Amino acid sequence: MAQLEFPESKYARAFAPATVANVACGFDVLGFAVENPGDEVIVTENNSYGLKVTSIIGDGGKLPIEANKNTATVAINAMLNHLKADGGLSIQIKKMMPLGSGLGSSAASAAAALVATNELLGNPLQKKELVQFAMEAERIACGAAHADNVAPAIMGGFVLIRSYSPLDIVAIPAPASLYCSIVHPHIELRTEDARKVLKQDISLKDAINQWGNLAGLIAGLMRSDYELIGRSLKDVVAEPIRSLLIPGFDAVKQAALDNGVLGCSISGSGPSVFALSTSKETANKAGQAMQKALHEIGLDSDLYVSKVNSKGAHVLK
Amino acid sequence: MAQLEFPESKYARAFAPATVANVACGFDVLGFAVENPGDEVIVTENNSYGLKVTSIIGDGGKLPIEANKNTATVAINAMLNHLKADGGLSIQIKKMMPLGSGLGSSAASAAAALVATNELLGNPLQKKELVQFAMEAERIACGAAHADNVAPAIMGGFVLIRSYSPLDIVAIPAPASLYCSIVHPHIELRTEDARKVLKQDISLKDAINQWGNLAGLIAGLMRSDYELIGRSLKDVVAEPIRSLLIPGFDAVKQAALDNGVLGCSISGSGPSVFALSTSKETANKAGQAMQKALHEIGLDSDLYVSKVNSKGAHVLK
Repeated sequence: MAQLEFPESKYARAFAPATVANVACGFDVLGFAVENPGDEVIVTENNSYGLKVTSIIGDGGKLPIEANKNTATVAINAMLNHLKADGGLSIQIKKMMPLGSGLGSSAASAAAALVATNELLGNPLQKKELVQFAMEAERIACGAAHADNVAPAIMGGFVLIRSYSPLDIVAIPAPASLYCSIVHPHIELRTEDARKVLKQDISLKDAINQWGNLAGLIAGLMRSDYELIGRSLKDVVAEPIRSLLIPGFDAVKQAALDNGVLGCSISGSGPSVFALSTSKETANKAGQAMQKALHEIGLDSDLYVSKVNSKGAHVLK
Repeated sequence: MAQLEFPESKYARAFAPATVANVACGFDVLGFAVENPGDEVIVTENNSYGLKVTSIIGDGGKLPIEANKNTATVAINAMLNHLKADGGLSIQIKKMMPLGSGLGSSAASAAAALVATNELLGNPLQKKELVQFAMEAERIACGAAHADNVAPAIMGGFVLIRSYSPLDIVAIPAPASLYCSIVHPHIELRTEDARKVLKQDISLKDAINQWGNLAGLIAGLMRSDYELIGRSLKDVVAEPIRSLLIPGFDAVKQAALDNGVLGCSISGSGPSVFALSTSKETANKAGQAMQKALHEIGLDSDLYVSKVNSKGAHVLK
């Protein structure tokens, strides 16, 4: 893979992680960050005016380089407007994660771009304040300014979006030893399409079931009650419909559960599937079993195993 | 008011508190107990067979004394069946709270009856195990075996019903200094009617809003973040409809908010209205303002101010 170039001008370089949004019962309001994969962005001052994407590595040529379409530059632009700052910036993006995978790929680029730009400007903004600008990038990328990927990508850990209007972001403390297995089947699913299959109305019964589980998950995370986390990792709203778009989903989930994970569901809008475990060994074993289930129906996949990432996007020195 | 008689035979006496169910965003899954009002029940061994309600004080003659209709005896009967126990028990009930008020009146009688009976039998069951029997009483009283009154009435504090099937009850730690003002307008509202006005389907948008707030409330309670508790005490599902059945609701709520409470909503299915505050002074002041708002439209009311009750139903020696 080609390397990013380190410029002579003043620059900053940042990494932002992949994220699992929805987390079973937390549709549109909960997400967490993993340690890998993730994206790297270098932002460099130049003498011209405006934002320019000078290179993108690792996207197979799929991402737009136009500054009003690329999530990194859209996010930076929103931030500069807020700060009433201008000047010229060149952006280099190194994608180290699959696109359209349900892992918050667009969010990771935006998050890394914002953290790098903030560093370059002498950190005028707190991390939490960057979330609103990354949401503008999400609006471009998938048609909705959702925050359940960008907030954990920037802040790390589990993040609750209590409210979108006004925006209210709440970091949820989680146990230190929580491991995540993510299996990404080699099919592409557009977030926009995955949103379209959802119904606009749900039964009050399902809603009650879902918010009972979300409340249980929050309580389980905050008091490190792994059994409660496991019992709460259920989704009766999105998973029953979206799982139909993921070949082999039921077998993958069963493989994870058979191997001792706490729970398993779709990562974001899919097609990636995540599982949470209490040890790296379980996370590895379950992940391999999940891959095997996909392989048996002829699908290749990537496996990512890491701790839940408590750090979020950060500057690389 | 007449006094309960203390019998010569072996007996046990218990108190169970009023409860606030739903707690704004936690429809059907969250409730908490207050210190007063509440009900008192005496359960006495006798030489005959079966359960018999020998007296009810304070109900204005409204409650059934038939053992298969009274919530105290229905609950005890479910417990005795579970324990495969029989024998004769006489039940005396002292209602010290209004009926049909949205304060868990039926739940309090059932909870006190169960705790007294458990004591009389040498406490074969844990408090949490008693909840399922009290739910049978709720089925008789209001047509649905809900647990968001009976669980906090028995256990005290804030209690989450993560799931009804299987039943999963989770105690939620709450800040020590949380005060509740409850205003009970002198109108009667049947739980069954208050359930009928609700829609069977809700928009996904409202559901997301509601579970974001419930997750925020759980996090706020667990980390004693009063501002977050306040921001989360919102109900977009039941309150907009049920409040129409409560004369002056908007003015009562505004009076509470104007006097510094964290949040205000309907207690259970109403007509009582509750508010949470961080001090007794605020709770008193807000409660009086809420009463005044009702008085201005010609409605009398009762005011109850107390701490959130962390003890729940307990034996009186």
